[in-house]
Amino acid sequence: MSEPKPGSTERETDRIEAFSDGVFAIAITLLILDIKVPRQSSSSLLVMLLNLWPAYFAYILSFVMIGIYWAQHHYIFKLFQKTNHLLNLLNLFFLLCIAFLPFPTQVLNEYMLDSANQTAAATFYAFGLLLPAGSWFLMWLYATHGRRIVDNRLDPGYLRRMTVQYGGSVALYLGAVLLSLIDFRWGLGLCVGLTLLYLLPPPRPRYVDDQS
Amino acid sequence: MSEPKPGSTERETDRIEAFSDGVFAIAITLLILDIKVPRQSSSSLLVMLLNLWPAYFAYILSFVMIGIYWAQHHYIFKLFQKTNHLLNLLNLFFLLCIAFLPFPTQVLNEYMLDSANQTAAATFYAFGLLLPAGSWFLMWLYATHGRRIVDNRLDPGYLRRMTVQYGGSVALYLGAVLLSLIDFRWGLGLCVGLTLLYLLPPPRPRYVDDQS
Amino acid sequence: MSEPKPGSTERETDRIEAFSDGVFAIAITLLILDIKVPRQSSSSLLVMLLNLWPAYFAYILSFVMIGIYWAQHHYIFKLFQKTNHLLNLLNLFFLLCIAFLPFPTQVLNEYMLDSANQTAAATFYAFGLLLPAGSWFLMWLYATHGRRIVDNRLDPGYLRRMTVQYGGSVALYLGAVLLSLIDFRWGLGLCVGLTLLYLLPPPRPRYVDDQS
Amino acid sequence: MSEPKPGSTERETDRIEAFSDGVFAIAITLLILDIKVPRQSSSSLLVMLLNLWPAYFAYILSFVMIGIYWAQHHYIFKLFQKTNHLLNLLNLFFLLCIAFLPFPTQVLNEYMLDSANQTAAATFYAFGLLLPAGSWFLMWLYATHGRRIVDNRLDPGYLRRMTVQYGGSVALYLGAVLLSLIDFRWGLGLCVGLTLLYLLPPPRPRYVDDQS
Repeated sequence: MSEPKPGSTERETDRIEAFSDGVFAIAITLLILDIKVPRQSSSSLLVMLLNLWPAYFAYILSFVMIGIYWAQHHYIFKLFQKTNHLLNLLNLFFLLCIAFLPFPTQVLNEYMLDSANQTAAATFYAFGLLLPAGSWFLMWLYATHGRRIVDNRLDPGYLRRMTVQYGGSVALYLGAVLLSLIDFRWGLGLCVGLTLLYLLPPPRPRYVDDQS
Repeated sequence: MSEPKPGSTERETDRIEAFSDGVFAIAITLLILDIKVPRQSSSSLLVMLLNLWPAYFAYILSFVMIGIYWAQHHYIFKLFQKTNHLLNLLNLFFLLCIAFLPFPTQVLNEYMLDSANQTAAATFYAFGLLLPAGSWFLMWLYATHGRRIVDNRLDPGYLRRMTVQYGGSVALYLGAVLLSLIDFRWGLGLCVGLTLLYLLPPPRPRYVDDQS
Repeated sequence: MSEPKPGSTERETDRIEAFSDGVFAIAITLLILDIKVPRQSSSSLLVMLLNLWPAYFAYILSFVMIGIYWAQHHYIFKLFQKTNHLLNLLNLFFLLCIAFLPFPTQVLNEYMLDSANQTAAATFYAFGLLLPAGSWFLMWLYATHGRRIVDNRLDPGYLRRMTVQYGGSVALYLGAVLLSLIDFRWGLGLCVGLTLLYLLPPPRPRYVDDQS
Repeated sequence: MSEPKPGSTERETDRIEAFSDGVFAIAITLLILDIKVPRQSSSSLLVMLLNLWPAYFAYILSFVMIGIYWAQHHYIFKLFQKTNHLLNLLNLFFLLCIAFLPFPTQVLNEYMLDSANQTAAATFYAFGLLLPAGSWFLMWLYATHGRRIVDNRLDPGYLRRMTVQYGGSVALYLGAVLLSLIDFRWGLGLCVGLTLLYLLPPPRPRYVDDQS
């Protein structure tokens, strides 16, 4: 039973990655549909285009977030030696959260300057970032618990470090949701800060017999 | 004639799978466009966002359905050793039904709370799920009849079992269409129940000389 | 000079095919966005959904057309042994015509039942089908003239036969444009007839030393 | 340390290219959504379709531009022997600019004939073309500085020539932005001229020991 049979449910991760890449690429490109061409009004087109800055801000923030998740997805799936049915489902749930992101992005860009609703808009956007962080953490916990999915040779310290990082990420986005309720600027500021933090290179995986 | 000539119509299934994956990934990601940002009104944004729950429900249900079909498509195409012109056409027809799903999803999410039209909306949505189930069953029947396409070594009992399962699926979605006409809640409930059922891992393919 | 240098402009066709597949898959899936959920009116949702039959008709027709072009693209690019800059440009122009198709599709579905404009709508749709047929024919002529791109061992009779078929296709779609001007039903009927014709399997490529 | 470890941040460029191809293919195909079906009015459908020529013009121009960048991306990434975290981020920023292009395209097509706003529309469109040119130049400078990323055997003269070309491109698009402010026709004319220029085949890469 060393060789997987054709049709075995323990498959290579190539296809799940290719499908996930498709969803990432489409979700990231659909974000532009959230920016609507301003309609004729009394102000000039230039002024109207400049007034769209919340839309540009939301576009850039969500684009970078999805891009970071794409890179992280590749980075982590290289540590996975196989996949199984439940990992596929957890990945599907994660993709559901990624594909959802264009919606809170549009809510943010349309209501960010509306003083009556900007708190709700920022809270909903932070919640929209909490969803992929949470589903990602779930997938990571499942894959590393008892080393179900991850490479056996990975250093336990490295795995613990990543668990703390992903769990901390969930806690921070939860914080961003709560902060938004107090002041939408603080909540959004935390979201921007986290995005900048995630632009740093991820820690290099360590293996048990790694001398480097 | 053991080696296929370049350009032979009996090809590997790689390309048809890659194209199908593209359609799956796009259809699943386009679902988010069905959720429209609520426009300014007298109620607060938070209330409006909560009132969109039928849209979230329809988004999740259709997302999971397309994800299940994607997994099933890979699962079954691994049993196919070749493809031919008619299988390509049947697969195209199946993809037409998958790509159609965002439309009944949007009909459901916009009319689910409209008491005058919720029966029609749920019936149309169940019909939208019947279409891929039916075209999938057609493709399966064609591929397995006389073992045209499937691997010769597959156990006949396994093939029969899958035929019963896919045929039963068609019957159950037909039932969901009819149930929706009586009470839209029963019809939708059956759709949700079937989706949950399909989240279970598929049976492992058995081969004639399989000892496991 | 037998081995291509890295970066040579005479490349494998893999990447151009993958990019083209992406455009095919997206264009075919975007067609569903042409079908708009009917808004509240005095008639029931069921009646409104049934009244959308021109949209379903246009969706199916264009979906099948793009699917046929996808299959044809793969079929022909297997005969190509290399690519070059001009072939890339001709392929890009062909993709421009494929990606344009959702627009005439939507024009047709919105104006097909409007007696004042149905002639213009059908003519424009037939023109929308003429564009990919014409750009495809251009690409084929370029690739086969002096056997620039196609496999040298291909039978000249086979190449001539395909040239006649693709050229005839351009002539027939031109005919559909003109017929639409006389009676939109005849023009659309010809478009449907041609689509059904193209569902037949393509002729098998013949090679010079082919005994089959 | 000659072999990269699994999970090393110095990876092959395959995945970044596949993801970029996805974004190119989706952005290029989404352009068609910018062309809106004209609504019922007093003029005939044919007249309305002809009056959409600015939309066709903008569609073709942006389609060809994205197609050129796609080809250029492949062309250059073949010169790259590896990738790293910062190159990934620079590539992501470049893709952000490519995915943004459908928006200035729609602004141009809606306001090109509006005499009060056509200057702003053309300037914004030229700016929309400046963005990918600039981010492309940044990525090239990073990759070639100290030969961080590019193949070591590439001829220094060839690299200098490409640096001049990409830098010149940024300057010319900046010129197009400024020209648009004076007369929108001159600015758009420069954009069209540059696009035609980029349709020429790229110079063949030269290697240090290259005799050709």
